Amino acid sequence: MSETYVLRRPTYRPGEVDGGAVARSLLHLDSSASRSRDSVSRQLTGLFADTWRGRRGDDRYDYRYRDLAADPVPLISPGFVSLGRRAQRHGPVPLAVVPSLVRGDDEAREWGLTLPLINELLAADTVLLGVPMYNFTVPAALKAWIDRITFPGAFTDPGTGQSLLERTKVVVVEARGGCYRPGTPREGFEFQARYLRAYFTDLGVREENLHFVCAEMTRAADNPALARFRSMGASSLAAARSAVTALAARLPDGEA
Amino acid sequence: MSETYVLRRPTYRPGEVDGGAVARSLLHLDSSASRSRDSVSRQLTGLFADTWRGRRGDDRYDYRYRDLAADPVPLISPGFVSLGRRAQRHGPVPLAVVPSLVRGDDEAREWGLTLPLINELLAADTVLLGVPMYNFTVPAALKAWIDRITFPGAFTDPGTGQSLLERTKVVVVEARGGCYRPGTPREGFEFQARYLRAYFTDLGVREENLHFVCAEMTRAADNPALARFRSMGASSLAAARSAVTALAARLPDGEA
Repeated sequence: MSETYVLRRPTYRPGEVDGGAVARSLLHLDSSASRSRDSVSRQLTGLFADTWRGRRGDDRYDYRYRDLAADPVPLISPGFVSLGRRAQRHGPVPLAVVPSLVRGDDEAREWGLTLPLINELLAADTVLLGVPMYNFTVPAALKAWIDRITFPGAFTDPGTGQSLLERTKVVVVEARGGCYRPGTPREGFEFQARYLRAYFTDLGVREENLHFVCAEMTRAADNPALARFRSMGASSLAAARSAVTALAARLPDGEA
Repeated sequence: MSETYVLRRPTYRPGEVDGGAVARSLLHLDSSASRSRDSVSRQLTGLFADTWRGRRGDDRYDYRYRDLAADPVPLISPGFVSLGRRAQRHGPVPLAVVPSLVRGDDEAREWGLTLPLINELLAADTVLLGVPMYNFTVPAALKAWIDRITFPGAFTDPGTGQSLLERTKVVVVEARGGCYRPGTPREGFEFQARYLRAYFTDLGVREENLHFVCAEMTRAADNPALARFRSMGASSLAAARSAVTALAARLPDGEA
């Protein structure tokens, strides 16, 4: 697994103070199989990230980027499952204790692939996800990341039992070829936003810290079968651009 | 991508006749990250496959096996998307025409990875899927297969516009660590069966040809937090074993 990221400064936990100022961090994950010029989700996350960074001086933030499609997170293997079950039998264990539970090379290798991704998520004030709808739900590229980071106890404070993601803000930027809103013929096929909302709230992200922006009918521009929805697609994209810009400009730093 | 399969005889399309007898084919896909001894879904699909084969003489069937976790289907790349969009702009095109639409090495490589998987699905009378629930939905390993086989027009008869999967039987064998049935506290987190039902019916598989078997509370046996559900887990597993055996024994061959 290769990592693609830009670190402006060392990574801080939310609310940590350095020289009297609070460092802010953005973890930006894209999962579209398409390159930027063809990908609505990549264009929108790029706009968010540019706006977010534009609010800050060059040295006042961490920005970390990961392309889950171009540099895939390896699928979990038997060692991930066996180590996870052992950790679960011990109750939620601190991440620092997990290495003492590792048995064998496969588990050691799996933990080596997993821990950096967990730490990266824990270190982020804001997580920005670019999520095209593929076959009614999230791309395999994003699910591979979800399956790997979701290690038993990784996001639970062993002392209090509270989630470590209670202050984390998650911005999900979705692109959909068609329209799946409530009241439309395809609403029953929407396993993208509904799924990610269930997943992240279960992980301990607060409802009020979970933000969704969605561009619909993105395929109307080039799919003749959707030609009559072109203006709907164009309006939806324009609204999504406004929404990510506004969100990046107003999203509070660090607060609970 | 390596392929793991056993071919007892050449693959036939459903209903094709060879020497007066109809050949039957089973495509068996597992997606659990765990090895067989630790995987409930693998044990159940193995039981189905053994029973299904036991009904037939050695030379009266094709059996094809693919381990989507051990031999992952590569994530789709930009060439898959660009080729798919071009095919879609031409309307549903026969698979044989797609090569004439290919531009460049990436698209050629992507089509080379995709076509064998599509043909494998088209050739199967019955598709058997082993699907553990990972983070409330299907494993990334299975989603990678779904994202790759779902090429525009691949399952549509270009002449009639009908689905080529109208006679295909799909057996989904699910394992879930907890319980997500309607009426339980976690019913809103069930994105496994609901998702696969939406996906396969959209692909043209008939409701009456879509079968689900589910073992619940599989983690109760080894997770202390679920200890009180152990008998529920054991009953659910026993019922699932009976259900897959009965289904493999009674599932009609080839009929519409």
